[in-house]
Amino acid sequence: MLSIPSGFQFSTVTSGVKKSLQDDLVVVLCPTGATAAGVYTQNQIVAAPVVWSQERTPLEPCYAVVVNSGNANACTGKQGEHDTHEIATLVAKECQTYSAESLSQASCDEILVMSTGVIGQFLPMEKIREGIRNAFQKFGHDEEATLRAARGIMTTDQGEKTGSRTVEVSGKSCSILGLAKGAGMIGPNMATMLGLLLTDAPLTKEQAQQSLTVATSKSFNAISVEGHTSTNDTVLLLASGTNRTEGLTAEEFTNFTEELTLLCIDLAKKIPSDGEGAKHLIEIQVQGAKTAQQADIIARTVASSALVKTAIAGGDPNWGRIVSAAGYAGVDFDPDKITLWLNDHLLYQNGRPADFSEKEVSDDLNKHFETKIRLVLEMGQNCATHWTSDLTTEYVHFNSAYRT
Amino acid sequence: MLSIPSGFQFSTVTSGVKKSLQDDLVVVLCPTGATAAGVYTQNQIVAAPVVWSQERTPLEPCYAVVVNSGNANACTGKQGEHDTHEIATLVAKECQTYSAESLSQASCDEILVMSTGVIGQFLPMEKIREGIRNAFQKFGHDEEATLRAARGIMTTDQGEKTGSRTVEVSGKSCSILGLAKGAGMIGPNMATMLGLLLTDAPLTKEQAQQSLTVATSKSFNAISVEGHTSTNDTVLLLASGTNRTEGLTAEEFTNFTEELTLLCIDLAKKIPSDGEGAKHLIEIQVQGAKTAQQADIIARTVASSALVKTAIAGGDPNWGRIVSAAGYAGVDFDPDKITLWLNDHLLYQNGRPADFSEKEVSDDLNKHFETKIRLVLEMGQNCATHWTSDLTTEYVHFNSAYRT
Repeated sequence: MLSIPSGFQFSTVTSGVKKSLQDDLVVVLCPTGATAAGVYTQNQIVAAPVVWSQERTPLEPCYAVVVNSGNANACTGKQGEHDTHEIATLVAKECQTYSAESLSQASCDEILVMSTGVIGQFLPMEKIREGIRNAFQKFGHDEEATLRAARGIMTTDQGEKTGSRTVEVSGKSCSILGLAKGAGMIGPNMATMLGLLLTDAPLTKEQAQQSLTVATSKSFNAISVEGHTSTNDTVLLLASGTNRTEGLTAEEFTNFTEELTLLCIDLAKKIPSDGEGAKHLIEIQVQGAKTAQQADIIARTVASSALVKTAIAGGDPNWGRIVSAAGYAGVDFDPDKITLWLNDHLLYQNGRPADFSEKEVSDDLNKHFETKIRLVLEMGQNCATHWTSDLTTEYVHFNSAYRT
Repeated sequence: MLSIPSGFQFSTVTSGVKKSLQDDLVVVLCPTGATAAGVYTQNQIVAAPVVWSQERTPLEPCYAVVVNSGNANACTGKQGEHDTHEIATLVAKECQTYSAESLSQASCDEILVMSTGVIGQFLPMEKIREGIRNAFQKFGHDEEATLRAARGIMTTDQGEKTGSRTVEVSGKSCSILGLAKGAGMIGPNMATMLGLLLTDAPLTKEQAQQSLTVATSKSFNAISVEGHTSTNDTVLLLASGTNRTEGLTAEEFTNFTEELTLLCIDLAKKIPSDGEGAKHLIEIQVQGAKTAQQADIIARTVASSALVKTAIAGGDPNWGRIVSAAGYAGVDFDPDKITLWLNDHLLYQNGRPADFSEKEVSDDLNKHFETKIRLVLEMGQNCATHWTSDLTTEYVHFNSAYRT
């Protein structure tokens, strides 16, 4: 059961953007005005809705987030910017006439926008306009409305991705709810990853931004499926503050950020797990690095290695591919000091393969969906963790046949 | 027909290191003493023979290069270093008793060593010792001996990789011969790439190093199959100088480096082409970059994209994956100014997909082995070219089943 924060309302409709006529437009309303923070794709090719939201966060008050799926409004030039502006304007107008008095002054600049789906095509604005009007007919704030919203932002996902945690603030329990989308692969929709975190804890917009930046760096920015960052990747955090009026103490803020990070990790791991043809979720832990950045680079390089990913797919305890991937990450370390574990098996130590049973490790790999690679460098005290999926023939088949 | 430089002799034997009992030990002798240069893997995990050769190049005189295939002598610790030292010592001793008077003073420090094959296993030194003794029984310097040497250094290659060019020096024609090994994939042998360039042009050891460094950066360092650099990658250039006693003029040196570069590109392109299951050789040209380094980074990033590689495998003119891969390379450019061509088809212009027939481009992709991606940035005057193979289900099948 999800713990749903107070202060938010959800509406999901089928606007007709998706050919399959599934839900494709979601409005999350925060009638009291939330503080909002965002983290966005690092790609140079950025979709219009990303530009829109990025220019406005951190934001206070934020009255609504509107998400459309099925069309990413990316690589759409001036027309795309115009369409995003119109979407925010339409949502603001609907807010003004909505029953909640507090929304009567909402402007388009207080609305955030996310899009995901095919790129290079203009949004079918007639359908979007009608969808927005329809969305304002029927908001809900129960688990059913929440789950429908989580499904409404999906594209190639095989199921909705949700999670929640609670954090104590002055003896009262606040909720953090997360909705995410993104699957282990790509195609026209470029594996866009969207995340929406909602809490009723009282955060300033600066706190929201700080907390989200930390949590994202350890979660959504630590997963890779094929190394692509998309044109539309966006994670937003909205804090309604309706559960408490006072701000957080330093300790409470630390606790909040920890809980938010754990929730984001939980959601992030669902993304490579959901890849078409993924047979393993691979966790790569790098320990004993000189700096956190070096640990991160090595973990990312191993996670991006097609050879490591095919080996795990094949149940092959191929220490050579893992150690060599670490070796070309561009980080100095002493090759004679590294230790490598695969699940609970020691594969490599002091510059030499360890004595292990290939069959035993292989059986272990084939038995479990989650695989843990642990690489210890003995160069310092820093560590990093990344997640990826394995690389199977089914994955390649899907990705080479997706469009044509 | 190969143009074979004077001053070199070849011997290839079956020492028994390979289970398949194919040729696996090659000695290239230069009785007059060559100048020698080397370029090596950037991996932190470096095999013993790489350490040996790297410490000694640029070198003059170099009397022999010994190459064994079937065992890379990598991840073998102190024992591996000891074994490489012994190999060089054995070759030097054989040189001393060989018929050529000039070799009578050869020392182990004038012998270079290359190894390729499985990693993490000690060399079977008994077999190697006998192989070296046998090799010195029967040198040749004709095309047959050259081709046998090219086959003797192979591991997973489907065929030998050779090429030659000529360059005029003071009205006389000098030869450059190249032997290479390396296939589009990996496994225990980590896709080690070896290259041996031989010329009878008279180069100082500094000239040899300079020329090889330039040629390698535009060829062997501009190919990627899965982004891995191996523990053993080595390219050596030996110049016997037997075809001319005077040195090269500045213009002749420039010509030499150009011809060497073209030869290295020719050899390098054979490596991704030889990948198990490769159905396309993909050339990525990045033009109009602000700096040569930025062009290189973008070309390398596109070449490493599993999504681009699966799209080409599927005959899918997926401009989004290519443009987006360029976008996450970490290089600033104006997305509204990029132009993308796939073979002769304009796919993308001014931040928007161009008007093209998907079927026509797809048919074109499916018809040809070589695919050309050309990305023009309009940010400056610099360019770079990389080569890679496509990513097919056969590739993944092979790589996940290779060992177990």
